[in-house]
This record gives sequence, structure tokens and C-alpha cells, in this order.
Amino acid sequence: MVAPQKEKEFKVIGTRPIRPDGTDKVTGRAPYGADIHLTGMLHGKVKRSPHAHALIKRIDATRALALEGVRAVITRADFPEVASGATSDEEGPVTPLPFLMDRVMASKKALFRGHAVAAVCATDPHIAEDALDLIEVDYEVLPAVVDVREAMLDVAPILHDDLRTREVSPLATARGDKPTNIAAHRQLSRGDVEQGFAEADVVVEREFQTSRYHQGYIEPQNATALWNKDGHLTLWASTQGLFGVRNSVASLLQLPVSQITVKEMEIGGGFGGKLGVYLEPLAALLARKSGRPVKLTMSREEVFEATGPTSATYSRVKIGAKKDGRIVAADAYLAYEAGAYPGSPLGGGMNGVFAPYDIANQRIEGYDVVVNLSKTAAYRAPGTPAGMLPTEAVINELAERLGMDPMELRLKNAVAEGGERANGQRFRRIGNREVMEAVRDHPHYRSELQGENRGRGVAMGFWGNGGGESSSSASINADGTVSLVLGSVDIGGTRASLAMQLAETLGLPGEAVLPRIVDTDSVGFTANTGGSRTTFAGGWAAYDLGLAIRAKLVERAAKIWECDVAAVTYADDGVIHGPKDGEGTPRRFSFKDLAARLPRSGGTIEVGVNVTPSGAGPAFAAHLVDLEVDPDTGKVTILRYTAIQDVGKAIHPSYVEGQIHGGVAQGIGMALSEEYYLDASGRQLNASFLDYRMPTALDLPMIETVLVEVPNPGHPYGVRGVGEVPIVPPLAAIQTAIYNAIGVRFTKLPITPRVVLDELLKDEA
Amino acid sequence: MVAPQKEKEFKVIGTRPIRPDGTDKVTGRAPYGADIHLTGMLHGKVKRSPHAHALIKRIDATRALALEGVRAVITRADFPEVASGATSDEEGPVTPLPFLMDRVMASKKALFRGHAVAAVCATDPHIAEDALDLIEVDYEVLPAVVDVREAMLDVAPILHDDLRTREVSPLATARGDKPTNIAAHRQLSRGDVEQGFAEADVVVEREFQTSRYHQGYIEPQNATALWNKDGHLTLWASTQGLFGVRNSVASLLQLPVSQITVKEMEIGGGFGGKLGVYLEPLAALLARKSGRPVKLTMSREEVFEATGPTSATYSRVKIGAKKDGRIVAADAYLAYEAGAYPGSPLGGGMNGVFAPYDIANQRIEGYDVVVNLSKTAAYRAPGTPAGMLPTEAVINELAERLGMDPMELRLKNAVAEGGERANGQRFRRIGNREVMEAVRDHPHYRSELQGENRGRGVAMGFWGNGGGESSSSASINADGTVSLVLGSVDIGGTRASLAMQLAETLGLPGEAVLPRIVDTDSVGFTANTGGSRTTFAGGWAAYDLGLAIRAKLVERAAKIWECDVAAVTYADDGVIHGPKDGEGTPRRFSFKDLAARLPRSGGTIEVGVNVTPSGAGPAFAAHLVDLEVDPDTGKVTILRYTAIQDVGKAIHPSYVEGQIHGGVAQGIGMALSEEYYLDASGRQLNASFLDYRMPTALDLPMIETVLVEVPNPGHPYGVRGVGEVPIVPPLAAIQTAIYNAIGVRFTKLPITPRVVLDELLKDEA
Repeated sequence: MVAPQKEKEFKVIGTRPIRPDGTDKVTGRAPYGADIHLTGMLHGKVKRSPHAHALIKRIDATRALALEGVRAVITRADFPEVASGATSDEEGPVTPLPFLMDRVMASKKALFRGHAVAAVCATDPHIAEDALDLIEVDYEVLPAVVDVREAMLDVAPILHDDLRTREVSPLATARGDKPTNIAAHRQLSRGDVEQGFAEADVVVEREFQTSRYHQGYIEPQNATALWNKDGHLTLWASTQGLFGVRNSVASLLQLPVSQITVKEMEIGGGFGGKLGVYLEPLAALLARKSGRPVKLTMSREEVFEATGPTSATYSRVKIGAKKDGRIVAADAYLAYEAGAYPGSPLGGGMNGVFAPYDIANQRIEGYDVVVNLSKTAAYRAPGTPAGMLPTEAVINELAERLGMDPMELRLKNAVAEGGERANGQRFRRIGNREVMEAVRDHPHYRSELQGENRGRGVAMGFWGNGGGESSSSASINADGTVSLVLGSVDIGGTRASLAMQLAETLGLPGEAVLPRIVDTDSVGFTANTGGSRTTFAGGWAAYDLGLAIRAKLVERAAKIWECDVAAVTYADDGVIHGPKDGEGTPRRFSFKDLAARLPRSGGTIEVGVNVTPSGAGPAFAAHLVDLEVDPDTGKVTILRYTAIQDVGKAIHPSYVEGQIHGGVAQGIGMALSEEYYLDASGRQLNASFLDYRMPTALDLPMIETVLVEVPNPGHPYGVRGVGEVPIVPPLAAIQTAIYNAIGVRFTKLPITPRVVLDELLKDEA
Repeated sequence: MVAPQKEKEFKVIGTRPIRPDGTDKVTGRAPYGADIHLTGMLHGKVKRSPHAHALIKRIDATRALALEGVRAVITRADFPEVASGATSDEEGPVTPLPFLMDRVMASKKALFRGHAVAAVCATDPHIAEDALDLIEVDYEVLPAVVDVREAMLDVAPILHDDLRTREVSPLATARGDKPTNIAAHRQLSRGDVEQGFAEADVVVEREFQTSRYHQGYIEPQNATALWNKDGHLTLWASTQGLFGVRNSVASLLQLPVSQITVKEMEIGGGFGGKLGVYLEPLAALLARKSGRPVKLTMSREEVFEATGPTSATYSRVKIGAKKDGRIVAADAYLAYEAGAYPGSPLGGGMNGVFAPYDIANQRIEGYDVVVNLSKTAAYRAPGTPAGMLPTEAVINELAERLGMDPMELRLKNAVAEGGERANGQRFRRIGNREVMEAVRDHPHYRSELQGENRGRGVAMGFWGNGGGESSSSASINADGTVSLVLGSVDIGGTRASLAMQLAETLGLPGEAVLPRIVDTDSVGFTANTGGSRTTFAGGWAAYDLGLAIRAKLVERAAKIWECDVAAVTYADDGVIHGPKDGEGTPRRFSFKDLAARLPRSGGTIEVGVNVTPSGAGPAFAAHLVDLEVDPDTGKVTILRYTAIQDVGKAIHPSYVEGQIHGGVAQGIGMALSEEYYLDASGRQLNASFLDYRMPTALDLPMIETVLVEVPNPGHPYGVRGVGEVPIVPPLAAIQTAIYNAIGVRFTKLPITPRVVLDELLKDEA
């Protein structure tokens, strides 16, 4: 269902053409990393630390190298030396390069269980695996800390002796020279929070905890490297960014970027977890050392323990309102574990925590904390599900305390265009209010939920969306189609959404534009597919290509008609109009006719563009859930689920709906079933898909989607990123619905059957 | 050795950087068609006619299809129906589409031995081969004709009942309705030939014959097709033109071009023989019919019998001169067999025959004749070696008759800028005279040849060179390199020569531009690599890309410096200069500095261009050979060989020298050893490299090259094609040298040891 919004009429945008990559994916022809086989290729395996925190005193590969079939062993000593102050900006904020290297392979200390300490390659994967046991590593085991709040204590084991808290304005005090696990302390504020609470009639304060959650992509990380005899490195990997891998590996191995080619591959899921590199530099170094191509693939256990899930968090939110529902103060405390190296998605939490509301007095305090677990990575709306859980749960409780409808309370406080945020920025046109109204008016919301142990919950979600750099080229084929060259990995419709925007610009059918993703040698730099930037920024590139092609076709028509360029126009339906001919008939070319004329009138048209657009449009969503709690087993069954979202303009609505379905499913997993079972030593006890319980199709109802379309004024077709925000609302919506079902306000997620049952049994006790 | 010519100073052009594809080729990593293996791939074989001329009465594949492992059999009935009048312009002049289809697979008649009549695919190549014998074909054998002059006779067997002679102006008479094997009769003339001969003091007339010669590329034709379930066809082939294959297969299978992707592959030699398609449409149809990818590879015997070598020819040239050496009349008769379908390289012969000379009265008559042999194809300066052989031999004889030095005679008649040709065109700046003078002044020419049975010969060569369409894109990497995207197959330095021209334009080192050949989806239409067009036209594209990048970098620098664009200049050394800063220091960026700034100042630069340049510059060459004839065996040994050529401007002299070496070697093969031994039934008796005798390194001396550089005024760097013309002069130079050695004027090439010996024994008899 698409909620009607008045807007420009489109011919291609908003339709649902066949997916360009559909056939290849359903028939199994689409190439993934596992499909790569090179002549003479070796297989690599990674030796990983069995300890969450340990000094590495000695690594001896002698016995491993003596095993027949083993060709090379690498350790951190095989990485280039870099100055301790060297930095890299490949993955967001400037990060010390030694940290990035350590994350890929431990140097002096292993900082988490599963931390790579060495890698080996051999003529077959079984020999490589056998060789792992022959690599001798002497450890001195150190005490470990894996909980974010424990890690913040003064008595906590320290991961990095040289880590000092980075204070982010407006915090004033410095933390001195004492080693700490608190990598950053940030604060945002607006107005006078104490004064605000003093004015409040009702105040609700709650604290929450969330687990580490893994993205759970189906395809494990893998990498194949060919280090050519001329020094050129070619990589095949499962990644969200071909150029991201190129930049990261260049930085880690201190190579010029053009010495590396990253080949285009399909990706079996990423959700943010495939923005960084793990195996790629190891494959490269093994290839260089062995003189042969080398392939590495992670097991699922390695994926869970050694790649980056999102942070476990501790949060506390306090909101005060007047009796009429006007929120006058809000205070948030967010502590995010980053894993073994600084850089949790705390920013996403802080940006999202109060985003839907116009609150004059607010303060948001955040901590980025290292613990002895794998470094966290981005995961769909990074940091925001945990950041908005407390707000949305507290708002729902506040509505109850005020005796107000929860959506009326939200609408009363909804931020709109021009609204100022805690970070000082002001919103441009957004669909926050439209989404809230769509919930309020939706039949699901207006329906009555009947039955015992059943409850309903609603919650909002926010994600700012991204921009960033995209390059692209295009050329016209003589049959009237257009080849579109992309540098973006397709993770959920990139090919379709960009091709459709070029087709729209040219006035062509969607199928007339043929998208093609190429490697890093064949198109200009293009940023990672992530942050919900690609349909937006890549769409700008497609639009600019379209304008360039239109201009060149106008020139060509004028040349053919021997008339002035100014007398030729390109109409939005793809027809090129010229002046009347000698007999008074207006001259015209369809795009197809003119395309057929190009070869014999000067050649085809080839254009290239690069864009780095600002103007990414934030996305708001509201989810509504009905559920039932089984009092005998504690199992929660979702009965009905409605996801309403401002999608700006849905380019290909099926993909948008798919993104929403996927986000909801993952959010439900966070709310109800997914978690890292860690023992005190930092070992994950459920590092398999059997035990790490992601929702399956059988666990979920049909998820109804409502696409609200409030065009983003920063994009020619109103595009907003749509992929991130749907993972945000499920946590609070479900937490509230469970409360409404059984009267228990759970504050630690996931709310698994065991947790529910413990609580219900406690009541009985 | 490079003959000095005054010219612009270049930094990259004229140097010899490491070849971009060198490492891959010497280590065996470069991918060729034989390396392609697809999941589920079948292997195909072609059933070929054992008769040179036969009606196909019935094809029954029942038994073949019953063989275990056989998946599909195709015949001509699997091709789409097309109207008899349908044409295709994919390969030069407009050609009836049914002819093109028949050439790939016979319809009603097999027209040559080796003509494909059916094809089969099976799970392994041996089963496919076994299946060939189980395909039953009933033939009615017809009389065949394989000699060009016999085929022109009224009594000759007729290949095509509906073929009528196409008369090309200024011939007037039509040939009526009688079937014929003469597909075309063309004439060029200038002045009054009869009057000219009447004025001549000396007239020499000679007739010549040349054999079919095969290009002899090392890599046989191969093709692999994946007909995807969505109808998209992907092809891997050994070809000189990715887009050429796309267009040809689209035409033959009546598909839109964008439904076909042709992947970039290396090529193991082509020399013109890989411009057309043979196996590609068969692989495609077998793939469609079997539902599986299919690969086909030719044996060497198939390459010889079923692909296109160049035409066997009969020619007659008569030249008249005054006593002072001034040529006053010239008459040429050229008859070229085209193989089974019209379209010999007669045009190349007619264009070349008198090209180096300014002859007021001349006539060139030519015949294109079908015979029961495989359709001829382009072969290095197509048609010109046979076309210039009679002229150059006769000129040498004329010099002898006049008592003149053969180069003085040539210089006296040399055509120069503004000179009018028989086709009415006038030459722009050419290096004809410079080449002749370089021969005259060369130490080899001025040396004395001593010894018995030794002789020296000299001859000129001409080739017009080509232009045509090229698309290309480029982007800047942050490390200061430039990625250059090409649609041209690299057959002898394309990557290097185009990258160097872009580097020159940008003022960068040659290694800073990284060329990349991509498939037909990833760049705009680019014509075949052939005709010596690629360094010329692709160079124009590289130059235009360079200008576009310069303009964009100037804009970017102005943006960074916050100054007017007009205040910024891009110097030829790659330094961008701006106005002085506040302290009076001139602002400047090296290319590398600015490249590093691009990501954070608006993104990289991506540009695309398409060119179809006119202005291809003709090439002239003169070769000088010393040889010795062994009177006991008839074997001719080349003692010394000097090739002098106007190369316009040698972009990468090593590649230019390589092209000349290769052309000379092939020309020597034509002169001395290569030929098709055909029996009367049209069977080739020497269809293997053991029996088809190409010169090897052991047969050849070091070939000295002299690069004369007369820049082509139609190109920014003066480029002329260099690859074709060196195959032209060896024939006449060697024929003359043998005459000078033993006093016999051979008129039938090759002049093999047997032929020489027969002649020497005849003298003794």
C-alpha cells in the first residue's frame, strides 16, 4: 500500500520492472566469492586467539611450515611498519592506522577471542587447517572485560595502555593521563534540562540493556588475492564497497590505491558488516609470500566471533512532560561497547535518541567503551535501534501515565521542517508528522485487539541517511538502450534503482537502461553501499548522466537536421523535437530512432560523471505490532505487524517493501531472540545459526508496509534512503506490546522465552 | 634506428615504458578463450562438408541425439528466417544477410570443403566428436571450381544461382541476367591510358599469381556462449572486436545488440582473420537449445579450411615510361577470388597498386570472384600485398630496362602532398618521398652485395589506414594515476599506445595511466581493432579525455583556491598554476597533489568521450632485401633485411618495430613458402602448421627497421597506423632479388624451393 501524496507524475519511478539481477540470482549464476577459482590457487586459514585478552609472547610457525603442502605463514610482522601516529580515514572518523592493523591481525596482545594472530596457506584447505594446530603461540593470559559498564569501572582490566578518553564538546574536563577503556565521551544539549524537568508534571525514567547483535548475513566473509608478478594486487571479496576494500587494503599494506584492483562480486548480505576488511589483507600477504593466489573463507563461528556485530549497550532515558502532553525535558545516557578498538556506533544512537520530537530542553550523553570482544561494525541504522529503544518505550509509558493516546502524544511533540536538533542542525522537509498521522489513521491502529495475553505496541524510528561520492558512466546502444556503468555493490536494488532514475531522466522505459557494476579499474571512485546513500547519491549521478545525454542528443539532432541547437528540445517522454522541415512538418526523433542514427552521424554518446551530493533526506518510520505471549512457554508470537515509513519517493516499491520487511525481521530478532551468549572469559557459546536465533519466515507474520512519500527536497526525484530505519522501531514497539500483554516492562533485550518465563514464574512465586 | 625529423618535443610519446599486459602474458595469467570454464558447460563440435560443392538433401541427427551425453544438434534451420533482401553492414560494405548466415552454416548447398552443415554439443568434447559421425547428411556432389580465372569462365560451375555482377562506376555495361561467379567488376581511371602508352618509350607488362595465404594466428578460433534464462546472451571469443562480435551475432540471430554481452579476452593473433564470426553464433544457438553454456574450439585444420585466409589472385600490370624515367601510363588488371561468398579484399589491391606514384594516365580494373573455397577474410593490409607485387616488380624491371637506379626511378615518380589518386582523392602530407630517400641514403642500399647466386631487391608498400569509432572513459585515482577504460581489443600495443597518449596529454609519466579493456556493457561502441585504426582513433579519444580532464582539474583548482577559472592554467608538464596567494607566492598543484585533494574537494573526476575521427594518415614503406639462392636445393636464404617506414609518430617504438618485424615475416612467408596446396576437389592438402610453411625465427635474419616520422596532420600526435604496410613490400622485393640472384623472373608466388629448383633444372635440361 502506498499512501497517496501529491507529486510530480513519473513514468518509470514508482513502477516495478523485473530486477536486472533477478535471473542470475535465482538460477545460481550470479558470482559470489566462493565461486572464485584461480589457477594454482592456495587455501588459507586463520589462527585465532583462544583467549579474550592475552599477551602474545612468541609465535613459532616452524612445524607448520614443515607440513607438506604448506606454502606460507604470516603474522603481524609481515605487515608494513607504520608510525604510531599514522591515521586512516577509510572507515569514517580518522582512526589510528595501528588500531586498524591490529584489528586485522593482533600485534602484542590478542584483545578478543577469535582475534587473528597468524594465517597459513596450503595446497588444500584441510592441510591449512591441520597447519593451524602446528603454529605454536605462547600467550600470557590477562584478565578480560566484556561488559560495557564493567569496562568503564576504574578497576577494569585495561585493553590499551595508551588509550585516553577523547572528550567531545561541549564537555569541558579532560580526563588526564590515566589509562581507560572509555575511548570517547560525547555530549549534545539544547536548552536547560534541569529547568525543563523542574517544569514537568510527569517524569518517567527507565534504563535498558541490549545485546550484541550480529547482522547474520548468509554469505560468510571471504577473500581471494592474486599478487601478480608485476606487483599488482587483484582481490575478490564479499564486500559492500569495492573501492572501500581498495582503500582499506592500500592503507593497511601501504600500497598506492592504483596498485590494487577489487573485482565486482555479488554479496550475500552485509547490512553494514561488510564495510571493513578482515581476510582481504591476509589473503594479499599470503599471496605475496607464497607467490600464488590465495583464498580464505570464514566459518560461521569465525563470522560470529571475529567480525563486527553491533554494540551491546546500556542506556538510560528520562523524559518530563506537562499534563497536556507537551514534553519539556529529556535526558539520555548511552554507553556503547565498541569491542576491542574504539569506534562504536554511538553517534547513530545519539543522533536518533530524541530525533522525532521537538524538545526545547534536552541533553544526550554518550560513551564509547572498549571491551574484550571483536571490534563492532556497522549494522543497519548503526547504533540507533538501541538508542531509540529507551525513548520510545518511555514515551509509551508517559502516554499511559498521562492517559493519552501514544500517537497523539507523539504528534503533539513531533518535530517538523525547520525544527532544531540537539546537534544544532535544522530539519529540511521531513515526513515525521505524516508518518505519525498515517499510523493514527491506519485501520490497524484503529482496530481493537482482543484476547488474553495480547498486547499492542507502537514506536518511532529515525535514520539520517547518507550522501557521499559516486562515479558513473553511460553510453547509448544502437538498439535504443543505454548501458549504465556503476561502481556500487548492489545490496538490495542498486542496479534497478539507479537504472530507473536514468530511464526516468531520459524518458525511457525502465528496461531500456542496462546497469552494469564494474571493478575498481573501470569506473571512478564510488563510496561504499551503505548508510542508505546509494539510491540517493547514485541516483544523482544517474540524473546528471541523463542530463548530459539529453544535451548531447540535442546537439546531434541539430547536426542531423542542420539547424541551430537552440531550436531542438528534449521532451520528458524521450522525444527530441526540432524545427519544421521544408514541408511544414515538425521534425522529431524518438530516442530509439536517434540512437539508431548515432553510428552513422558521428558515433555513439559516452558520458561520465562524478557526484558528491549533500542533501540526504532523513527517514522516519513508525511500527505497530500486535503480539501474544504464551504464559506456559514465554514464547512471543507476532500476530500483526504494520510498518509505516516516509520513503521520500519509492523508486522501485518492491525493493522498498523488501527493505522494510528485512529491517522489521532483524528488529524483531533484536527484540525477541537474538543475542550473544558470552561466558565470563568472553567466549560466545552460541556461535552458530542453530543457537544464535534469528527469526525465520515461520516466526513472522506477513509484514504490512505503508509507504508514505514526502519527497526529499535535496534530490531530483525526492529519494530518501529507505534501508536503515525499519530496523529501529521494532525494539520499543515489541517491548511495549509485551507490557500491554502481560504487564511486565522488560528492560533487557532480547526478551526471550526464558526471560519472559522467568518473569512470569517470579510473579507466581 | 629512428630517422631524425624536426617535430614537437614529447615526454612520453616515443619512449618505451613497460607493457601493461607484459607480465600477464609472459606468466600465462592473461585470459584467452581456452581458459573459460563455466558451471555445467557443454562442448561443441562442428559437422563440416567433405565436398567443395554439394547440394544438401537431408540432415538427420536422430542417431547423434540418441548418443548418451549429446544435448543438442543445430543446423541452419535453427537460425532465424530473414528476408532474402535483408542486408547487414557489420563487416564493411553492405552484405546480404543470407550470405552472412550461409557462411556461418550452410543452407541448401555446401560451398566449400569444411563448410559447417551442423553442430552438436555434448557433456564432453570426445562425445561431441563421436556424435559428428552419427549426424547423417545426404549430399548431391556438384562440380567445383577453386581457381579465380577458371571461375570467371562461362563454362564454370556456378556457386550462386542468383548472383549477378555488381558493376562499379565508371563501368557502364550491365551484365544481364546470366548467373556468374563474378560478384563485382570495378574500375578506377585517370587520364587517358591508351594515349599514355602511345607516348611511352619503354613498356613492361607482367602477370602474376599469388596463393591463398592464411594469417596463421597461434590461437585458433573459439567461442563460449551462455544463453541466460532471462534471454541475455554472453559470449567469450577470440576476436579483434568485442563490439564487432556483438553486432554480427545480433544481426545473424536477429537480436537487439543490448541482449548480447561480449566479454573482454586476450587474443592470440588475428591479423584481420578475427574480424568476422564463425563459432560464436553456433555456440549461442547450441546454448539456447541445450539450456547450458557451450564452448567450441577449432582445430588447426578447421582454421585452415573453414576460416578466411586472404584471396588467391591473378594480376597483370603494364607500365610505360619515357626514357628519362617519367612514367606516363599504367594499367592494372586484378582478379581476386573471394572464396564462397562475394567480398574479396580487391579494394585494398586497387587502392595500393599504383599508390606511391604520380601517374597521369592510369587504369585499374578489378574483379571479385567467388570460388568453392572458404570465404576470404581480411589479412594485414588486405589485398595490397598481391596488388602491389606486380607494380613493384614491373617498376624494378623498368628501371633495369631504362638503366636507372630503381629508387631514382621511384623518386622521379613519387607522389607527394596534393597528389591526385586514381580514386580522385588527394593526399595530405605523406612520407612517401621521405621513405624513398631514406632507402636511397641507407648504408644497406649503398653497400655492395657480393657472392654468387645472391641478389638484392627493393619494393614499396602502401596502406591507407583506418579511422572509425572509439568510445572511452577515464577517472582519476587519489594516488595520482588515471584509469583509462577501453573497448578495443589489444592486438599489438593498444593498451600502451592509448595510455601513453593520455599520459602525454596530461603531462604525466607513461606509467601513471592504467589502461583497462572492458566488455561491451561497460563502455560505448568501439570499432574493431584492425585496419590500423586503433592507435589513431583511440588516440584521439585519449587526447579528448585528456583535454576534458585538464578542464575539470582547472575548475577544481579554481574552486579550491577560490579564484576565477580563467586565472588557472594547466601546463603541459602536468602542473596546475593559479594566481598568487596573499603572500605573493604563485599557487600551484602538481597533478598528483591535486589528485590527492579530489576526494575531499568534491570527488574524483570521471569523463567519457566518443570519437569518429577522419584524417587517418596513409603509410608508405620501402623494404630492401639481400638473399641467396641455393642452386642445389632451391632454398632461398634471406641475408639482410631493412624495412623503412613512415610511421607518422611512433608512440611506443618497440611496438612499432614489432609490427614491422611481424609484417616482414608474414610477407616473406607469402613470397617464399606459404601456400594452400589444393587438390582439384578443393581439399587443402597441407592444413597443418607442419605442412603450411610459415617462416620461423630460424628462417629469418634480424630485420633492421628504420622509423621515418612524418607526422599525420590529421592527428594531435601525428599518428599513422603502422601495422599493415610492412607486409606489402616483401613480395616484390624478394621476387626481384631472386631475379637478380639467378636471373629468373618468377611470376607465381610463393617461390618455394621446389619452384626454384624446377626452374633451375629446366635451364639445365
